[in-house]
Amino acid sequence: MSQSAQNAVIAQSGGPTVVINASLVGVIEAIQETGLAGSIYGARHAVRGMLEDDLVDLTDLPGDQLEQIAATPGATLGSSRDKPDEEYCKKIFQQLAKRDIRYFFYIGGNDSADTCRIVSEVAAAAGHDLKAFHVPKTIDNDLVLNDHTPGFGSAARFVACALIGDSLDNKALPGIKIDVIMGRHAGFLTAASALARSEHGTGPHLIYLPESVFEVEQFIADVDRVYSAMGRCMIAVSEGIHDQSGTAIAQSLAEQFSGEVERDAHGNVQLSGSGALGDHLARLIRERLGHKLRVRADTFGYLQRSFAGCVSKVDAEEARASGRHAVLAAADGLAGASLTLRRVSDSPYQVEYVPVPLAEVAGKTRTMPPSWIEGGCDVNSEFIEYITPLVGPLPQLGSI
Amino acid sequence: MSQSAQNAVIAQSGGPTVVINASLVGVIEAIQETGLAGSIYGARHAVRGMLEDDLVDLTDLPGDQLEQIAATPGATLGSSRDKPDEEYCKKIFQQLAKRDIRYFFYIGGNDSADTCRIVSEVAAAAGHDLKAFHVPKTIDNDLVLNDHTPGFGSAARFVACALIGDSLDNKALPGIKIDVIMGRHAGFLTAASALARSEHGTGPHLIYLPESVFEVEQFIADVDRVYSAMGRCMIAVSEGIHDQSGTAIAQSLAEQFSGEVERDAHGNVQLSGSGALGDHLARLIRERLGHKLRVRADTFGYLQRSFAGCVSKVDAEEARASGRHAVLAAADGLAGASLTLRRVSDSPYQVEYVPVPLAEVAGKTRTMPPSWIEGGCDVNSEFIEYITPLVGPLPQLGSI
Repeated sequence: MSQSAQNAVIAQSGGPTVVINASLVGVIEAIQETGLAGSIYGARHAVRGMLEDDLVDLTDLPGDQLEQIAATPGATLGSSRDKPDEEYCKKIFQQLAKRDIRYFFYIGGNDSADTCRIVSEVAAAAGHDLKAFHVPKTIDNDLVLNDHTPGFGSAARFVACALIGDSLDNKALPGIKIDVIMGRHAGFLTAASALARSEHGTGPHLIYLPESVFEVEQFIADVDRVYSAMGRCMIAVSEGIHDQSGTAIAQSLAEQFSGEVERDAHGNVQLSGSGALGDHLARLIRERLGHKLRVRADTFGYLQRSFAGCVSKVDAEEARASGRHAVLAAADGLAGASLTLRRVSDSPYQVEYVPVPLAEVAGKTRTMPPSWIEGGCDVNSEFIEYITPLVGPLPQLGSI
Repeated sequence: MSQSAQNAVIAQSGGPTVVINASLVGVIEAIQETGLAGSIYGARHAVRGMLEDDLVDLTDLPGDQLEQIAATPGATLGSSRDKPDEEYCKKIFQQLAKRDIRYFFYIGGNDSADTCRIVSEVAAAAGHDLKAFHVPKTIDNDLVLNDHTPGFGSAARFVACALIGDSLDNKALPGIKIDVIMGRHAGFLTAASALARSEHGTGPHLIYLPESVFEVEQFIADVDRVYSAMGRCMIAVSEGIHDQSGTAIAQSLAEQFSGEVERDAHGNVQLSGSGALGDHLARLIRERLGHKLRVRADTFGYLQRSFAGCVSKVDAEEARASGRHAVLAAADGLAGASLTLRRVSDSPYQVEYVPVPLAEVAGKTRTMPPSWIEGGCDVNSEFIEYITPLVGPLPQLGSI
């Protein structure tokens, strides 16, 4: 291990994706190339590893191992859902100072950007020169100032491939099918289902996003209209749909059907890792439109962010480049920055990586622009143009 | 359209797969090549299309369109869950006779083999020379006399890729995770989850099949043991698990938790297209092992049989070859046959296609050999050796 005073730590936070390890590798290889830091540490399970000095030495990881890691789903350093407060951040900083860590690269969503910001401020107040960088990651695509975020393209590809297949299944054995997709506040991933549509009759026919108020009566009328016209209906619905008052439909239907509502440590209704919303919507449709209807619901769950082998090439490249650009920003003398992805051109598709002050991204949530949402149950061609290059070419289909 | 008296009809039945269209194309191209029949008809939605003379002419479909269809998930002719009785089969036969149809190729599971058998017998009794062939298809892998069935390898590949990613996710954010996999009576597909295991810590740690009685107390003890030792636990469970009396766990837990039990037209508890079993098992674990545990459940649902882009190459080739061999059997003068896949050699992996009388396959169900099941919650290396060539190479992983 090198004994340079300029060491670096990298950590991965929040829900893993299939390309978050590509960002990790981007940071490692760029430090190796630039010689930015003497030792490169990885913190196990994000902030917890930093707090407990549970670090792994990444300094001399060889290229072939880095390539394997970059292609592996999940967060190989381990992740955490902890949201550290200022006290916690102070302790983290003290641990980092002991190891002469001067660079802190945190790969995660908007909460991670906020942790980065606080650690950075605590260090500054203590007169310690710690340069903190946030590398964007989230399948929800909900970071402000970003055209899109690493992780989203591959998750969107999963959703599109799932809807292609499931729609063809529904066409072969007609019925009403509900697919519940991740996204508590932002509907980008659910909207990606629209990519599945083709001249071969693939759906979805109805798309419900958390950006719009979900009206039960309108929903029933929509399903009835499509089913009456086509004899089948494919529905893509975000787990985060809610009523006028902001109450999650997952919660209000659970109460209506006397079901159980699981809550997380923060008191939020548990949306992921449960099939309850889909099952409740299926029951609602049967109760309102007929008990003999063939109604099925699938909840895509954790496969959306982890499925091995369903990766958008562009997404993997951008995830890796985001990590590299964070190091380049550090080498340029920047600090306290979040790397953002900006689209420079649509044709040919091209992005650039722009560092911005952490506070501009930290803790903020971006949702679907209203101009991309069509009525209460669809997205328009502007959204399709936006998302197409992020997902890559989809399987070609045939029919008779 | 050719006016030869020797016409053929093809239909697809039961749950679609990602390779059932490859079998369809295998039949079509082999008839085109051999000149077995003048006109080739496809029946829309299986027996219903045959009953209602809802046929589409496939005789001159060009090669490039056939290639596209072969690579498309779902049953492009449409499918059906109807189980025709003898009266229904008589009507079908009358329709086929009107069109001078002398060859009947039915791609499906053991129910489809039975339909084939009855139609064939009704035709023989009427003195009509109808040659019926069953082409095997089922992700459940539950046809007797077959080493395995087309559709299984690709569905098993989906399950393996899902478990690889989901296990890495669970390793990054530890907790107890339940994945519910299709298979009411046969556990082959759930057992395929074992392919996900690697030196990188991928699970599953526990595998529950419908071939073994599911004991709730043993299950809780198993989960407790793994979680206590590892701080996490990945569980693969078949939708068809049942207690000593044969009652589905999906049903008994629903009753225990005062939940709703959906039933299909035959009175069977609805297992697919619902997240209920997974949610009930998660609740059971929380109630027994601690309410603060992070317990999540995903139900893979229809994605297992339809996901676009997750195809085993071997499976797709064998599905197509099964269709071709059915036509070759017909050209050899055989009739009333089900094509079976036999493994000739393990190294190199090689199969042959053996026609057997329909009655030997029709309506029978094969389950996992007891010698492949290890204790109550695992499979052994014999099963892994069996399944590996069917699924194809899985994504390579790296870790730190």
